[in-house]
Amino acid sequence: MTTPLPRIDGDRLWRALMELARIGATPKGGNCRLALTALDGQGRDLVTGWMRDAGLTVRVDQLGNIFGRREGRNAELAPIMTGSHIDTQPTGGKFDGCYGVMAGLEVMRTLQDHDIQTEAPLELAIWTNEEGSRFLPVMMGSGVFAGLSPLERALDARDTQGKSVRDELVAIGYAGADPVGGRPVGAYLEAHIEQGPVLEAEDIVIGAVTGSLGVRWYEVTVQGMETHAGPTPMPVRRDALLAATDIVQAVIRIARDNAPDGRGTIGVMNVHPGSRNVVPGRVDFTVDLRHADADTLLAMEAAFQRACDDCAATHGVEVGVRLDQYNPPTPFDADLIARVSAASRDLGLSAMDIVTGAGHDAVNMANVCPTGMIFVPCKDGISHNEAEDAKPEHLSAGCDVLLATMLGRAGIVA
Amino acid sequence: MTTPLPRIDGDRLWRALMELARIGATPKGGNCRLALTALDGQGRDLVTGWMRDAGLTVRVDQLGNIFGRREGRNAELAPIMTGSHIDTQPTGGKFDGCYGVMAGLEVMRTLQDHDIQTEAPLELAIWTNEEGSRFLPVMMGSGVFAGLSPLERALDARDTQGKSVRDELVAIGYAGADPVGGRPVGAYLEAHIEQGPVLEAEDIVIGAVTGSLGVRWYEVTVQGMETHAGPTPMPVRRDALLAATDIVQAVIRIARDNAPDGRGTIGVMNVHPGSRNVVPGRVDFTVDLRHADADTLLAMEAAFQRACDDCAATHGVEVGVRLDQYNPPTPFDADLIARVSAASRDLGLSAMDIVTGAGHDAVNMANVCPTGMIFVPCKDGISHNEAEDAKPEHLSAGCDVLLATMLGRAGIVA
Repeated sequence: MTTPLPRIDGDRLWRALMELARIGATPKGGNCRLALTALDGQGRDLVTGWMRDAGLTVRVDQLGNIFGRREGRNAELAPIMTGSHIDTQPTGGKFDGCYGVMAGLEVMRTLQDHDIQTEAPLELAIWTNEEGSRFLPVMMGSGVFAGLSPLERALDARDTQGKSVRDELVAIGYAGADPVGGRPVGAYLEAHIEQGPVLEAEDIVIGAVTGSLGVRWYEVTVQGMETHAGPTPMPVRRDALLAATDIVQAVIRIARDNAPDGRGTIGVMNVHPGSRNVVPGRVDFTVDLRHADADTLLAMEAAFQRACDDCAATHGVEVGVRLDQYNPPTPFDADLIARVSAASRDLGLSAMDIVTGAGHDAVNMANVCPTGMIFVPCKDGISHNEAEDAKPEHLSAGCDVLLATMLGRAGIVA
Repeated sequence: MTTPLPRIDGDRLWRALMELARIGATPKGGNCRLALTALDGQGRDLVTGWMRDAGLTVRVDQLGNIFGRREGRNAELAPIMTGSHIDTQPTGGKFDGCYGVMAGLEVMRTLQDHDIQTEAPLELAIWTNEEGSRFLPVMMGSGVFAGLSPLERALDARDTQGKSVRDELVAIGYAGADPVGGRPVGAYLEAHIEQGPVLEAEDIVIGAVTGSLGVRWYEVTVQGMETHAGPTPMPVRRDALLAATDIVQAVIRIARDNAPDGRGTIGVMNVHPGSRNVVPGRVDFTVDLRHADADTLLAMEAAFQRACDDCAATHGVEVGVRLDQYNPPTPFDADLIARVSAASRDLGLSAMDIVTGAGHDAVNMANVCPTGMIFVPCKDGISHNEAEDAKPEHLSAGCDVLLATMLGRAGIVA
């Protein structure tokens, strides 16, 4: 055992979060700082100033991703990176993304305070446009960095007013010169509020994220027969909505049968023609199936398809299913998961393994380097909402775990 | 037994229907002749010309309702009236409404051909704006005639472009001087395509309509909790759509339990926020319950309310139910129902009792005079659709029954 690790300054972390949250603050206590707006530019200016004050060398790549680097003793080693994003949803909260960046900043400040040198260099990343509220795709900066989508397509993406990422980067002064990605990263860690209710419900402070759920997205169309509600007796109807309810219930049952990681959601449903005295002739809806295991997810799909077939036979309707998108499960790095758990234990913090159901920059980074995430509870599991909230002591605890895990992986110069 | 009744001319009836259908004909073989448009005016001109040729005296009231009168021997008697409407849905068919008017015209033509005098006078009515596609409420002309809604409100009704019934009546030359209603009617009969699948399925030519179903319309709101589809495990969700599926299925079950007259329909459903990766937090939908018996309809409502309470308890959601509208069941006149059945039997036509689930001008008229309806089959039960179709021999048969029933009620001068 080496000397005890320093502890981060929880008050400083909280103050940094609150100061950043003043840029684009909303009346209900949330944040609106959409990617590459002037407000995003102000946020970037504020945080990069703090990064430089913490002794970091700041570089910006061609997609506006920001990297604050703290050199290690061994320049040959790939950097141990942490980060997240500071863009928000239109009615977002103060913590989603910002916590990961401010926690990384607090780690760097603590190391500076204690004059600690690491073997490997450390980097703090601010990824461009994680939220995807203004420009698609979501998780844009980390996606291009990880080679998952082309730079040119990202730069050409336009918002609803026709403004491009390329032009907006120039407008806020964050069109950098560095190539996007294509360089080794030793490990990537990201601290984040859970955005779900599990840790709070279990009264656990730290979630050691084992990976992300695989997601399969479908579009389903149930075609029945549109008829008048009055003259059409029940036995001769082919009610597309009644038929669809069987599939909705089957999807939920399939997800529950595959607890605890199974998820099944119907989020969009359109009923045609949508008249109160007409039996629906067609219902379109989405299905979102998730699981941490790819084979289990395929078995869930098969059960879902059987439910659609049964529905068609039972109700005399046609059921069409189209797979729209598949994001495979992404397991995180076993060593980093173990280090997060161990660091929590050493710090006297309760911890549990947890999966992330939501997408994060870390999920992209897991394609190019060992990756881990640290979750802390958020109030009522609420996120993407101005009511998003988290406790200072939980944020501090997660930041301490981040510090310990980064130093453990980077190595401290004795 | 008196001398055999004359038979109507089925070919002439069909030709009249087809000629009227040329005004506002749609490419797919349907009709678009919205109430009080120039096309409706052309249709009115055509039919009132035919009415005059058939020896009728044509009068128009202040709401544009048209009455073609054939005097009887006894001017003291209230007229035996038949009729329907010639306005159509935007993508309507050739038969809905038009059949009732053309059948009445064919009755008048047949009586003229055979120089038959009745005891009571006969009238053929063309009601203004039955469909309600352009102006609300539906069944406007007969509703005001029957004293169910005020004339001024009808005249002030405006279409989506701000044009009023009052001005449009003037524009097409059908703002008459006669008061609307307030005069006795001896009986009202209306021939109509069924607009449902029952007669066709039973291979029956004539439906003796016993009355209309009572209708109760509700708005239901299910309030659950909006959460992210990924991070939220199944057991902690309060999925408003899953909860709503229980109520949808209960409504259908309740209607089936009250066969053959029970109806239950969910025609409109809106899922909020309507994002594929968000568990629905709120679902709003309509419920349409119908039955021919008012007490049974109330019992159906009670069962529906219990299902909502059960749903709230099972799913941990809030369920709000609001009654929007109630139209009580309207029984038709027993003598007229019996006369329709007897006339069918005398003519060698198969007949059955049937209820109307859809609204008709006759349902309004049943409030002020003995009323009956004669249904004939339509193809696949389809109506309010350009594909609406009916067989010439069925239309002829219904018209023969109309003639016999009117003459039976009016009395023939020997």
